[in-house]
Parts: sequence; C-alpha cells; structure tokens
Amino acid sequence: MTDLKHAIGVDLGGTKIAVALVDSNGQMKKVIKRPTDVAGGPIAVKHQIVEAVNEVLKDTPPIPPAGLGIGVAGQIELGTGVVLFAPNLDWHDEPLQSDLQEALAIPVAIVNDVRAATWGEWLFGAGKGCDDLVCIFVGTGIGGGIVSRGRMISGSSNSAGEIGHTIISIKGRACTCGSSGCMESIAGGWALARQAQNEATKDPKAASMLLEKADNNIENITAKTVAAAFLEGDRLASRLMDEVTEALIAGAVSLVNILNPKRLILGGGIVEGLPHIVGLVERGIRAKALKSATGSLEVCLSRLGNDAGVVGAAAMVMMVR
Amino acid sequence: MTDLKHAIGVDLGGTKIAVALVDSNGQMKKVIKRPTDVAGGPIAVKHQIVEAVNEVLKDTPPIPPAGLGIGVAGQIELGTGVVLFAPNLDWHDEPLQSDLQEALAIPVAIVNDVRAATWGEWLFGAGKGCDDLVCIFVGTGIGGGIVSRGRMISGSSNSAGEIGHTIISIKGRACTCGSSGCMESIAGGWALARQAQNEATKDPKAASMLLEKADNNIENITAKTVAAAFLEGDRLASRLMDEVTEALIAGAVSLVNILNPKRLILGGGIVEGLPHIVGLVERGIRAKALKSATGSLEVCLSRLGNDAGVVGAAAMVMMVR
Repeated sequence: MTDLKHAIGVDLGGTKIAVALVDSNGQMKKVIKRPTDVAGGPIAVKHQIVEAVNEVLKDTPPIPPAGLGIGVAGQIELGTGVVLFAPNLDWHDEPLQSDLQEALAIPVAIVNDVRAATWGEWLFGAGKGCDDLVCIFVGTGIGGGIVSRGRMISGSSNSAGEIGHTIISIKGRACTCGSSGCMESIAGGWALARQAQNEATKDPKAASMLLEKADNNIENITAKTVAAAFLEGDRLASRLMDEVTEALIAGAVSLVNILNPKRLILGGGIVEGLPHIVGLVERGIRAKALKSATGSLEVCLSRLGNDAGVVGAAAMVMMVR
Repeated sequence: MTDLKHAIGVDLGGTKIAVALVDSNGQMKKVIKRPTDVAGGPIAVKHQIVEAVNEVLKDTPPIPPAGLGIGVAGQIELGTGVVLFAPNLDWHDEPLQSDLQEALAIPVAIVNDVRAATWGEWLFGAGKGCDDLVCIFVGTGIGGGIVSRGRMISGSSNSAGEIGHTIISIKGRACTCGSSGCMESIAGGWALARQAQNEATKDPKAASMLLEKADNNIENITAKTVAAAFLEGDRLASRLMDEVTEALIAGAVSLVNILNPKRLILGGGIVEGLPHIVGLVERGIRAKALKSATGSLEVCLSRLGNDAGVVGAAAMVMMVR
C-alpha cells in the first residue's frame, strides 16, 4: 500500500447500501448510505451503486481510486465476482463485478460481507499487525474469516469461513442450513430469538420481562429483546445468554484448536451489544482449548463495528497481495 | 523439486523409528526400522537416528540428500525445531533439530508426525495435485493437517491441525485433553476402546463377541477388537462404530464448512482397517455441510498408509516453498 492510495468500499445488504471513499489508513473520507432498492432488481441496485460512487468521487483529488471493493451478503464466485446467490437481495448468478467494472471503468473486487469485514478488522481494526487471525461475527447469523500467514483463506470454491455451521452439538436443534447442532443454531441472533420465543410460549410468567419489552407479542421477541432484558438482570435472559456463550466457547475452542490463530476477534451485533461476552469466551477458551494453541493467543473485541464491511471492502482492493 | 533430488525421512515414534531414503517421486529407496530406545533417553535415540541415517546413505549415489525431515509425535517449536514435549518419548525441550544438524551436517526440519503424514499424502498420496486439502487421521488419537492454496497451515505457534479436539458434543464425554465432547473423545481409538469396555462392563452378554476376542478380559478390548467384531457382523460393535462414524461426520462437516477444501482425505489405523467409513463420512458430509462447500469436494481414503509419515517428512525438505 502506498500512502497516496484510496479506494471505494461498498457494503451491499438487503436493507441498505453503504458506499465510502476510504484512504490507505482505513479512514472513511466520505460516506453515503441508501436503502437498497431490492424490489427494483439487480439493474436498479447496480444503478444505485454507480450513482453513489460518482457522488462519493465528486470533489475528491484527481487521483483515481485504486479500485472498488464490494461486500455482499451472499455467495460469490471466485475469480469472476458473479453473485451466485444472495438471499436478501433475491439475486441469482448476477455478474455484479463485470457490470460495475464496465459502468465505472475501475477495477472491481467482490467478496461476501463477512469476509469484507474480516479484511477491515485485519488491516485497520482489531487485527492490525497480526497475520494469523480468526474473526467471529455474531449477528442474526454467524460468519467469520480466517487469515493465515498473511493471507485470507478463501477455500477451494470461495466458501471458507462458514464458521457458524461448525457442529457443536451432535444431537442439537435444527439449523436453517438443513443440518443440526450448528453453532449458529444456538448462538445466532435468529436462534436466540427462536429460543426466547419458545420459552415465552412455554412459561409466559418466567418470560414476563421479555414479553413486556415486546409489547406482549411473543413474535416481537428478538435477540435485541433478550440482550436488553439481560442488561436489566432478567433471569431467563441470563440463562439464554449462558447458552449462547457456551455455544460460542465451543465453536471458538474448535477454531483455536484447528487453526491456532494468534488473535481471535469477536464482533457482530450481539457481541457489540454485550461485549462482556468476549471475556467469557476468552476464559472458556483458556480452560478448554489445547495449551499449545492458547499460549500466545489474544482474544479481543472487533474495533470497526458496522464500518468493518465497507472499510474492509475498500482495504481489500488497496492490498497488493 | 528437481528430478535428481532425494532426501531422508524419519518417523520417530514411541515404539519404533523408521528411516528411509526417499526420491523426488516419493519412492522409498531404502528403509530401516528399529525399536525406539526410549529408556536410553534422547542421547540414545539421537544416536539411533544418526546410525540409521548413515546406514541408509551407504552405497547410495554420491549426490548428497536435500536434507533430513523428521516427524515426531509431539509438539515442535516453529523455527528452532525443538521438541517441546513428546509424551511417548518422555521428552521435554529437546533440541533435536540442531543436534542432528550438527551430527549429520545436513539441513534438518522437524514437524509433528501428523503433519508429516499430511505432507506425504499431499505430495505423493491421495492429495497429489491438490492445493486445498484437509487430512483426518483416525488412530489412537485423531490429528490432521490443512493445506490451503498450496501452503501447509502451521498456525501461529505451530499447533494448527489439532482437529481431534474439535468440539462436536457440547455436553459430551471427558477427553484426555482436559476438555469434553471432542471428536477424538468419541471417535479416537482410545475412546472407542473405553466405550467398548464400558459396554462390556454394563452388559457382558451383549458384548460376548468382544469379550471372546479379548480372552474374556475387559481390559484387553481395544479399537481393533471392535473393528474385528464389526467385520463379523456383531451388533454391539456395529452400534459403537455408528457412534464413531457419526462423530467423524460432525467433525468433517465442521472442517468442510470452515475451510472449504477441495479434497478431504481420511486415514489412520481405524479408517484403513474399516475403509467403508470413507463412504459413510462422504455421504454424511454431502447431507449436512453447506452446498457451497461441497459442490466440488472430493472425499477419499489416504494412500500411503503407515509410510505417509516417513515419506512426508522427506518430501517436506525436498519442497522449495
């Protein structure tokens, strides 16, 4: 990376698009956020991106950006940058990379959103200066990224990092992936909400605080409801969060034993909302993972929050690796 | 690798030492096996290795070997090649690499035995030509190796690949590592033996075939006993093997989802004794792992068997990576 470089990062999600000009220090110089026009289909969304990019580039120094990086919540084909499947956008086989490259006449690189966030944390966040790390992002789902000896692990078909689907409970609950017992099926936001709703159905009295926060409608109970109740000392919420933590520890122990990273970074909405989880997971890892793998391990909270994706997408194209 | 190269591979275990001259096609040209003089301590064992190496090199063409590679069942310090801990040898902080380098005046490289076997399978066995693979060796314990984009993953403190300690059962049985619910604590040879012995204690009638094969001594029941009874259609052995397979599937699914390898190679004594396990694990992976990770995945049996370690140790030093 030269100091003069800057690049454009795009975080393309099902609800919003964020576009930012990012400099080689990972600073966002200009940011535009727009609700994603999902109903308009791929053509409308691509148009939104092109417009936002042009707006972001207006009034900037005449040095052209190193390129455009996009993080998309979906499955991306390595090499071509075709969005094979993006459930939140309802996209199939969309040639996003080539279309944007043509429209903008700059190099475009596409990765999935979680890997973009890993790039961000690695180069400019909690992973800075570390060349062996694992990120675990706990939001509605759980995803992650792996950096080994200074290289992002993509896997043979660009699908590496699906750490939410690490099986931690061989007889466990059904997961949305079709399997069961996945870490995500216990510790993901959707699973936490499901579990809280089940508990409220079984025992509304024990779930009184959850119900109160959800306007007495069981279906309104979300992971955020549980987190809020937890922070007020609610017993059921505390028990549910114990299960989440236990599941995260199991998954983290597996990752540490398999990959032996120098740094394990925890982020995503649930962890950022309840950052004490990081300390609990660290304690669990030190108790349960192999000593040979934990001697010099650091466990920490992500640093870029919601910006990790957009910063990371830009960072990725600035990297000359 | 040039065609003219050859190297020496050493497989140093608690019961035997194997030393071989290996050519650049992975062919063993000369092999010497000796019982390990564990009682004699590190000095005696190093002496055994030096003697065997000299014998192996006797009458060979005058081209010096590219080096000496050793696989040791233990924990090796990256860079220095110090054997930090080798339980079967009762070694602690043994400077094996530097001592052998001095004694033999050739470059010496040390890795743990499972990683050596992964080198062997990768370069000359079932992994040939594949640059993204995971090996799972199921013996008394379970270990593995990971190759990503043509590089062996070592981890930040050389401990990567401890896949036996992937937690697959959050409420599972105790493991020898101090944790519980590890894949090894269900599917490793020691765990299978323990489980079979427990069953025989609880219900000797149901375990009659196991007991018969163990001279009616519960403590004689090993993983081999179970495998032999399984092959004769024994019901209890079949149930125990189902548990092993289920555990291997869970661990393999996690590895495939996390790493997205192109090839998954299963080996080790238990799988080589009952190779139908490979097909069962493959079927389980295809049913439970993410489609994005299994589309082009190949699952296969290791090819080098017991020679993987000694061939791999030599292969490692011939590689110019």
